[in-house]
Amino acid sequence: MAIKINFKKDVIDLSIGAGGKSMHRLIEQLMQKAFNNEYLARQEDQAILPVLNGKLAFTTDSYVVSPYFFPGGDIGSLAVFGTVNDLAVGGAKPLYLSVGFILEEGLALADLKTIVESMAFAAQKAGVIIVTGDTKVVEKGKGDGIFINTTGVGVVSDKTATRHTLQTGDKIIINGNLAEHGVAVMSKRENLDFMTNIISDAAPLNGLIDYLLSHDCQIKTMRDPTRGGVAATLNEWANQHRASICIDETHLPISTEVHSACELLGLDPLFIANEGKVLIICKADDAEHVVRTMKQHPDGKNASVIGEITKINDQPQVVMKTAFGGMRRVDWLTGEQLPRIC
Amino acid sequence: MAIKINFKKDVIDLSIGAGGKSMHRLIEQLMQKAFNNEYLARQEDQAILPVLNGKLAFTTDSYVVSPYFFPGGDIGSLAVFGTVNDLAVGGAKPLYLSVGFILEEGLALADLKTIVESMAFAAQKAGVIIVTGDTKVVEKGKGDGIFINTTGVGVVSDKTATRHTLQTGDKIIINGNLAEHGVAVMSKRENLDFMTNIISDAAPLNGLIDYLLSHDCQIKTMRDPTRGGVAATLNEWANQHRASICIDETHLPISTEVHSACELLGLDPLFIANEGKVLIICKADDAEHVVRTMKQHPDGKNASVIGEITKINDQPQVVMKTAFGGMRRVDWLTGEQLPRIC
Repeated sequence: MAIKINFKKDVIDLSIGAGGKSMHRLIEQLMQKAFNNEYLARQEDQAILPVLNGKLAFTTDSYVVSPYFFPGGDIGSLAVFGTVNDLAVGGAKPLYLSVGFILEEGLALADLKTIVESMAFAAQKAGVIIVTGDTKVVEKGKGDGIFINTTGVGVVSDKTATRHTLQTGDKIIINGNLAEHGVAVMSKRENLDFMTNIISDAAPLNGLIDYLLSHDCQIKTMRDPTRGGVAATLNEWANQHRASICIDETHLPISTEVHSACELLGLDPLFIANEGKVLIICKADDAEHVVRTMKQHPDGKNASVIGEITKINDQPQVVMKTAFGGMRRVDWLTGEQLPRIC
Repeated sequence: MAIKINFKKDVIDLSIGAGGKSMHRLIEQLMQKAFNNEYLARQEDQAILPVLNGKLAFTTDSYVVSPYFFPGGDIGSLAVFGTVNDLAVGGAKPLYLSVGFILEEGLALADLKTIVESMAFAAQKAGVIIVTGDTKVVEKGKGDGIFINTTGVGVVSDKTATRHTLQTGDKIIINGNLAEHGVAVMSKRENLDFMTNIISDAAPLNGLIDYLLSHDCQIKTMRDPTRGGVAATLNEWANQHRASICIDETHLPISTEVHSACELLGLDPLFIANEGKVLIICKADDAEHVVRTMKQHPDGKNASVIGEITKINDQPQVVMKTAFGGMRRVDWLTGEQLPRIC
């Protein structure tokens, strides 16, 4: 007879990561039940999946966010949405995820259960299946509760392939408010209770992107501005395409709460991670249609053109026209304002 | 001008995991250089790969081995071979790997460089490409030097698909000596210098498996006996197929050194992790051909039939005929003799 795990009282111990009975018990009573699909049910060390009808898209991310529960989400939903979004912004349809847990001895199984169930819910929301996994346990003091790696596989049809050449005048569009994920995690970490109405924007972007593509939006390239924020993504583009980019501070969608929180904490929302935002570059002529279409979708209500490509084949740089009419350089930070935000 | 990293003196700091300049510098000067391929060179958050000609195989593993350098390998080569092997034993041709690093603040960049270069060498040896990656950094005391997740994608052609029904009389074959990985890591961890001639068996199995398949070896199913050792794999099979399995102690290939080390430390080689071994089940009539073919390959020199399926559709159990002629139950352990062995 299988011993029932007490998810209310038990904690992770080293035996669970060791490939023996305890590990199998946890996988059967928690992961297989929550993720519930034919591939995991086979209990093999690899999933054998149907033939893909197109090019293979492949992406990985480890999640080490601290704390692992935060307003608007947790490390589990973040790990699903983050990896789904890295596929979606590559023009791929996200299909399958793998999950690798690194658990610290002493982690409450109640927390693990909440996180695993949150992953299952997030996967369902994003339309992906968690088909294979791995669980390791490290001694107390050699980890931090829970780290999660998710790796995603998707398929790219010729229709959805992006990555076109950029041109002077191309517009840069975002689908909504900046910095909500980073500020929400920060508020929880620092116990800043007055910020409790700021919640993470963590969400899957594939629904919105599908909607845009099926409404004839011509997208040149997309990225999700996560670690390092919008500033990092713009600088990556500037470097990659040898482009000058100019954004307009007055066009950046930022909620009053996030704006106040950032002022108070001395943080710049341009550098703070987002987990449900996409930056899109398109031709100037297509920008209005893209923004209008975005606004019709629940995940694009606050869409805005935030800037444009001002030169190509130049010294890469990103600048911002400030609210006061001046110009300011937006360099990427050497490090980060907020470590372990995702 | 890009600042040159001093790989001899520098250590990992939190800024490196933050998506800013330091992280890009590390990726450009270390990972992209070592792994060196067109997909990584694109610096996107996802790799877009060619259409696969067959079913997709997908597997993930996180590696937390301690210490991260051990006789015969390191966490880097282990992370490549382990994931390659999980694809190969599923009957897939391993093609692409992703890599996710979780680094602890203070890790010497010299160590990281050695590990990354070891991964590159291992990938070349196994014939796979590391096409996408992620690097996170956690504060000192919240990790343990380095954890690595690798996730692998392979392709299964109809020819190589395995997983047949098992029958009474089917033989169980291993390609060589037991327990060398676990004992090698243990000897290093415990500073047992007298064991220095025991080195990890970590190796890619896809070469050997290709060789068997191309020499008409009829394989019913395969697994690599890693965590929990041969005992765990046999018990997994027994459970999955409701089979009784009997192995013969005198037929288990174990080196004199490993045998002595296990006696001294009170460890049972059946429960110790291997990282270059495959267990194969085939029809009784095919066993001789499989073993003979294995022995012709450098990774199968010590191949041996170690046991057989004695009953199907029965209470699952694994037993061993001991060297003294008695019978002993081989249950899987609740936990593990050796934590953090892979």
